[in-house]
Amino acid sequence: MKIYRANVLFTLTPKELNVLEHGYVVVGDDGNVIDTCQTLPERYATEPVIDFGDQLLMPAMNDLHVHAPQYRNHGIAMDMELLPWLNTYTFPEESKYRDLKYAERMYRRFVHDLWSVGTMRAAVFATIHPEATCLLADLLHEAGMGGMVGLVGMDRNGSETLSNTAEEAVAGTKQLIEHTAQMPLVSAIVTPRFVPSCTPEMMTALGQLAKEYQLPVQSHLSENRSEIAWVKELEPESTCYGDAYLRYGMFGQTPTLMAHCCYTEGEEFELMRQNHVFAVHCPTSNCNLGSGIAPIRRFLEAGIPVALGSDVSGGSGFSIFKVMQYALQMSKLKWLYTDHQDQFLSLSEVFYLGTKLGGSFFGKVGSFEPGYAFDALVVDDAQLNFDNYSIQHRLERYIYLGDDRQLTHRFCQGREIKLKE
Amino acid sequence: MKIYRANVLFTLTPKELNVLEHGYVVVGDDGNVIDTCQTLPERYATEPVIDFGDQLLMPAMNDLHVHAPQYRNHGIAMDMELLPWLNTYTFPEESKYRDLKYAERMYRRFVHDLWSVGTMRAAVFATIHPEATCLLADLLHEAGMGGMVGLVGMDRNGSETLSNTAEEAVAGTKQLIEHTAQMPLVSAIVTPRFVPSCTPEMMTALGQLAKEYQLPVQSHLSENRSEIAWVKELEPESTCYGDAYLRYGMFGQTPTLMAHCCYTEGEEFELMRQNHVFAVHCPTSNCNLGSGIAPIRRFLEAGIPVALGSDVSGGSGFSIFKVMQYALQMSKLKWLYTDHQDQFLSLSEVFYLGTKLGGSFFGKVGSFEPGYAFDALVVDDAQLNFDNYSIQHRLERYIYLGDDRQLTHRFCQGREIKLKE
Repeated sequence: MKIYRANVLFTLTPKELNVLEHGYVVVGDDGNVIDTCQTLPERYATEPVIDFGDQLLMPAMNDLHVHAPQYRNHGIAMDMELLPWLNTYTFPEESKYRDLKYAERMYRRFVHDLWSVGTMRAAVFATIHPEATCLLADLLHEAGMGGMVGLVGMDRNGSETLSNTAEEAVAGTKQLIEHTAQMPLVSAIVTPRFVPSCTPEMMTALGQLAKEYQLPVQSHLSENRSEIAWVKELEPESTCYGDAYLRYGMFGQTPTLMAHCCYTEGEEFELMRQNHVFAVHCPTSNCNLGSGIAPIRRFLEAGIPVALGSDVSGGSGFSIFKVMQYALQMSKLKWLYTDHQDQFLSLSEVFYLGTKLGGSFFGKVGSFEPGYAFDALVVDDAQLNFDNYSIQHRLERYIYLGDDRQLTHRFCQGREIKLKE
Repeated sequence: MKIYRANVLFTLTPKELNVLEHGYVVVGDDGNVIDTCQTLPERYATEPVIDFGDQLLMPAMNDLHVHAPQYRNHGIAMDMELLPWLNTYTFPEESKYRDLKYAERMYRRFVHDLWSVGTMRAAVFATIHPEATCLLADLLHEAGMGGMVGLVGMDRNGSETLSNTAEEAVAGTKQLIEHTAQMPLVSAIVTPRFVPSCTPEMMTALGQLAKEYQLPVQSHLSENRSEIAWVKELEPESTCYGDAYLRYGMFGQTPTLMAHCCYTEGEEFELMRQNHVFAVHCPTSNCNLGSGIAPIRRFLEAGIPVALGSDVSGGSGFSIFKVMQYALQMSKLKWLYTDHQDQFLSLSEVFYLGTKLGGSFFGKVGSFEPGYAFDALVVDDAQLNFDNYSIQHRLERYIYLGDDRQLTHRFCQGREIKLKE
């Protein structure tokens, strides 16, 4: 058992931030929270306390949409919208991952950068290459971090050097399932790239795989208008883009992440709601690629779960705190452009999305309630807190102004994670 | 004379980035650039060279709209739009600056933070308080940085504790003019807060002052729809918001900065063009306060000069590099929301706005052409440049991913500026 003392911050619900000034979190040997309390109960009186002083202690970040093999391209090449961007920059870069040495060099940096900004669990797109994808799982596992890793299926509209068959995608994913079987925090996720990249054969095969192994699914949905029009052409029998996943068993039949959903409405919206499909909000990426602003307020009001994603390298950085900043800012533009119909998001709401709601995809992750995994960050914001700000304002300042320099400790499933570049 | 060697980056025009790989900048004893060249001419052969190795050397940032007395509030309190935000958070904070001790504590931090992110010159709103405003000028001057500082005039719709009369605003600005008379890089700028804060008496007095002393002017324009509607009510005789400045001699009669201009069109647009009024683009702030996205492409096409502003504390941070990032991103949303009519901005364009075009308000500032002030930053981006990126991509990565850690040297008018917190 470990007992931590600090200014504890977390969100039980999206409505408010729970703040325990100089409170306690008691963590069991299994890495799960036993108790979170303002005053330490008598029964712990003889236990040693690890005191983080005036620092902040909060749940770690969950990144529910990120492309590890786009690592080299993050922070460059954002002068095109989605479809030409994929062909010009992204597919050529991903095709390099057949080279395991290149993959290792980049994936080590990727894992380090996630860690650096306080992301302890991520849903990750890898590439079509089984060896490199298993290696990525290894690196996350070795670091002690959690995640779901997807071997990408893509058998049309890619490039000669970046394409696999349905059989290869299934075999590669099975290899990954086996490879990660003994990893407590890392597992496989079925990953059709997106409808334009996947023939009916690919979709059928991956849908069956998801069903057979009861695996979760991740993909992209309604990110960009040209993409949506293209899907309509490619899949005339589908009633909407979402339906093109649903028909193959990959739209909530098992837990499902759909990144972007900028233009989800009508039937697709209703299908997401009925099937409890996660919308992964990637506002930085949606700005960088000129995609649009997802209707997050409407999703939340309808009970559609929303997580946050960095979407590197459409997104330009890994920090989910910065994604929270963009989620707040974009929600204000959405509010403006919907004539104030879609009320903008609050600080506690975006924090809830990045921690507890995003974390729920991994199980009991993202809160400090009893039974939750102790995934946590300790933040020394003394430099930012020069004038006695409230704890809530300290969190807000950390989100807007902070970076990796203030993160002094990072925990995943109770274990402190220390990485060097 | 000083000769610097590094990877030199600057923009002669918005169209392209000028890159001199391991090039030279020769700086005279007056702090102005003598020569910028790929190969050092024979005549300098015997001079010592200060070699920054593989680092980047670029013009320093110019922040053309920032509120120094909102320092404490930056990174908090962004849950309202402009008008309630002013009354709830901003005016109460600014009224604290009658206390010179408080002002000094905050203004020292303000100057440090500007420096820290590489801003060497700024157009700054202070408050209504003459002593604190002169102190701010002192602190910028002592640091060796450049700027225009404005004592704010506001005689209506403020609060009891934050209001001055036209006479006080004129007297305070005259005090500031005298106070800064011997400061080579710091000067006064006439600063009516914005039309809703200024009676016709205030506007008349400040307009006369600008004319008499041939001083530049800074204010706010068409930031928010409620504000624009309010101005219409308050100034029924003005044909547009811009005209309410023009009538009082503060819309281009002397060099003029107008922050925001999110909704400038029609007559106001034409008046800006004719009068060469600067639109100061503050995209971070415009997101945070849900104001809107200014039509920057249209301004540039019409020849209306555009500068960048952090607009702290509507803006959440001081870095003009980050403002460039937002300018790029918001231009993509603008492109989207204008059905691709307003082509989005390029990297070289936003860099040009933050350096040469913004800098032009201070004279020959913001470029490395001969005769320009050597305002410069040296950037050690080795951590970000792990895979032989091009110089252009290195700049792009620095804008998106970098921060103050990579800035190893900062120069203003040829002098290296070193500050400690």
